[in-house]
Amino acid sequence: MTDTHEVVAAYWAAAEARDWDAFGSLLADDVVYEAPQTRERVRGRAAYIRFNNEGFSGQWHVTVQQIVAEPRRAASWIQMSEPDEAYPGLCFFEIGDDGRIAKITDFWPEPCGLPAARAHLVERY
Amino acid sequence: MTDTHEVVAAYWAAAEARDWDAFGSLLADDVVYEAPQTRERVRGRAAYIRFNNEGFSGQWHVTVQQIVAEPRRAASWIQMSEPDEAYPGLCFFEIGDDGRIAKITDFWPEPCGLPAARAHLVERY
Repeated sequence: MTDTHEVVAAYWAAAEARDWDAFGSLLADDVVYEAPQTRERVRGRAAYIRFNNEGFSGQWHVTVQQIVAEPRRAASWIQMSEPDEAYPGLCFFEIGDDGRIAKITDFWPEPCGLPAARAHLVERY
Repeated sequence: MTDTHEVVAAYWAAAEARDWDAFGSLLADDVVYEAPQTRERVRGRAAYIRFNNEGFSGQWHVTVQQIVAEPRRAASWIQMSEPDEAYPGLCFFEIGDDGRIAKITDFWPEPCGLPAARAHLVERY
């Protein structure tokens, strides 16, 4: 377990608690968030707290599935649960010199169909 | 850099080279592959090599964006390029006692629209 592991665990715990002071304390002043699927970007701690606090009104809950961490970067796999659905979320983190989160890249893969071309090569679960 | 980092880098290098012997040498005998979006599962080295060799006929090329590695687990973020498109792929790996890959969980997030509810909280890129 690295300090970076603890930073990412604390990030998700603060998000789950809607504790935006604790959440913000983990972020660099100039943190950058990007979501490649929508090509969204948010710059700076205050804007990123507001994005999380105001951008997602649902009764969402986060369960951490895995955190993989090196001293300066990490990845997390969470399960996001809402009243009617649950789905995975994947983030890659970069950590700055001061140990705070400098960059977050966020992915939300969605369920999709199995291509017929490889159906004979797999089982389903 | 850990040995696990090198195993994951070698995994993608072997896939890119279609060097299925090298690819197989990185896998546990009873490797398990899962893709939660399609609920596909493949069990065992031979089946998993066949899945990769026969299941994807396109002229695909892999570029590694990031590997994050601990001794017993890792995550990779790749860019998959085909003649007409390029898209990210994300994997989480579990490493067995012998240093080979025991479990792969594979995600392919797709482009999607930006919900109007948070459009005022982001920029686009």
